[in-house]
Amino acid sequence: MRVIRATLAYDGTDFVGWQVQAAGRSVQGVLQEGLERMHGHPVRVVGAGRTDSGVHATGQVASFLSDIDSIPGPRFRDAMNAYLPHDVRALESAEAPPGFHARRSATMRVYRYYTVTAPVLMPHLRRHRHWVRRNLDLERLRAMAGLIAGEHDFTSFTAEGAASGSRVRTVMDSRFDAEGDTVVYTIAAGSFLWKMVRNIVGTVLWIEENGGGPAEMAAVLDAHSRSAAGPTAPARGLFLEKVLYDETLGS
Amino acid sequence: MRVIRATLAYDGTDFVGWQVQAAGRSVQGVLQEGLERMHGHPVRVVGAGRTDSGVHATGQVASFLSDIDSIPGPRFRDAMNAYLPHDVRALESAEAPPGFHARRSATMRVYRYYTVTAPVLMPHLRRHRHWVRRNLDLERLRAMAGLIAGEHDFTSFTAEGAASGSRVRTVMDSRFDAEGDTVVYTIAAGSFLWKMVRNIVGTVLWIEENGGGPAEMAAVLDAHSRSAAGPTAPARGLFLEKVLYDETLGS
Repeated sequence: MRVIRATLAYDGTDFVGWQVQAAGRSVQGVLQEGLERMHGHPVRVVGAGRTDSGVHATGQVASFLSDIDSIPGPRFRDAMNAYLPHDVRALESAEAPPGFHARRSATMRVYRYYTVTAPVLMPHLRRHRHWVRRNLDLERLRAMAGLIAGEHDFTSFTAEGAASGSRVRTVMDSRFDAEGDTVVYTIAAGSFLWKMVRNIVGTVLWIEENGGGPAEMAAVLDAHSRSAAGPTAPARGLFLEKVLYDETLGS
Repeated sequence: MRVIRATLAYDGTDFVGWQVQAAGRSVQGVLQEGLERMHGHPVRVVGAGRTDSGVHATGQVASFLSDIDSIPGPRFRDAMNAYLPHDVRALESAEAPPGFHARRSATMRVYRYYTVTAPVLMPHLRRHRHWVRRNLDLERLRAMAGLIAGEHDFTSFTAEGAASGSRVRTVMDSRFDAEGDTVVYTIAAGSFLWKMVRNIVGTVLWIEENGGGPAEMAAVLDAHSRSAAGPTAPARGLFLEKVLYDETLGS
């Protein structure tokens, strides 16, 4: 058995999320269906990030075991794409070292959240961008994002009803950049709490809209209570951008 | 009655085209429905270009008569957007001089056709790009595009079953540009034959794929026969980019 690692992009709009669920079309599900047709037997796929319904990816990483010996690792990409719907694509593939596991081996996940501030959201972007109809004070956003970096208890930014366990996470990067009329939030961490990125973005935008800044953001973070934070930003603005691995595992 | 002129963008994927038809969702139709709800009576909308099913726009121009006196011309944009589905947006609006007619007053239409040549088409672009899985010889494309500029009988590039009448048109601009892994064809003319742009692009790509160049393209143009040309390129790569008007009409 070989371990195959594939980098994936998908448009999350028409999926219930990454993970196979009792009902609905999942990214993991269409991958497993495609690989089953390709292999002639069921193939279990593991993903680095369990993206929610409507969340997109340009750099999700998946791994699976394959008993097909005739296809070189890099050619799995095209073979897989022949069996996948057009809203999921393999961008790259390779044979990974034995023991590689897309989720457990990952050392860092990078997400990006895109918010358009133009007076009109171009229709071609409507599935892939959040839209707020006002100018954003980039300096205030940046000051708030800076507070997120580092090791914190992120209870305020997890979802109601999330699994128990430690809510402490270490954020390696947390910043806002402007690209034309679009504000892009980038966050990198080893792992995230459920809906953490969308809750951080939703809270930052909510504080900014109400004239607040770093003091209010610090108070939310310190409250360790979901009810202190703002709304969850919509899924459509969020992309799983990249997953990093130890170099020994061929990142 | 005031004449209102609006610049529109739309994602043509889920439309049967610009024009109202017996069945199906048309851009003109959703505009007329929105304006009827806004005005309390039917409003007839005219568009500069009758885009086909699946064809997009970033700069379509529409005009209509309005008896609403309370909304300044530039504010029609937001009022219209409140009554439109998210795959059609008014980008700008203004009160136009009496007699302005989005179709009859137009002096030039500019279309762009986008073809991605990357090994994988990113899923987020799948509704808005044609995809050919090979490198394109840009110099040969440019030489073929150059033959299209000027006044010609474009019978070879019109659709089977198109209305009769002169097939002579004057093309003011016809060129290919590369933007990363995307090849963009731009064509400008006062008016076009039905499916002319997609037939030109389809033919150029077909000749290129078969190793031909300007000589083969000239032969197709001179044949004055649709059967001499190549396939029609898919609608999803085509955008109505811009419509120009005489400055006296406030272009």
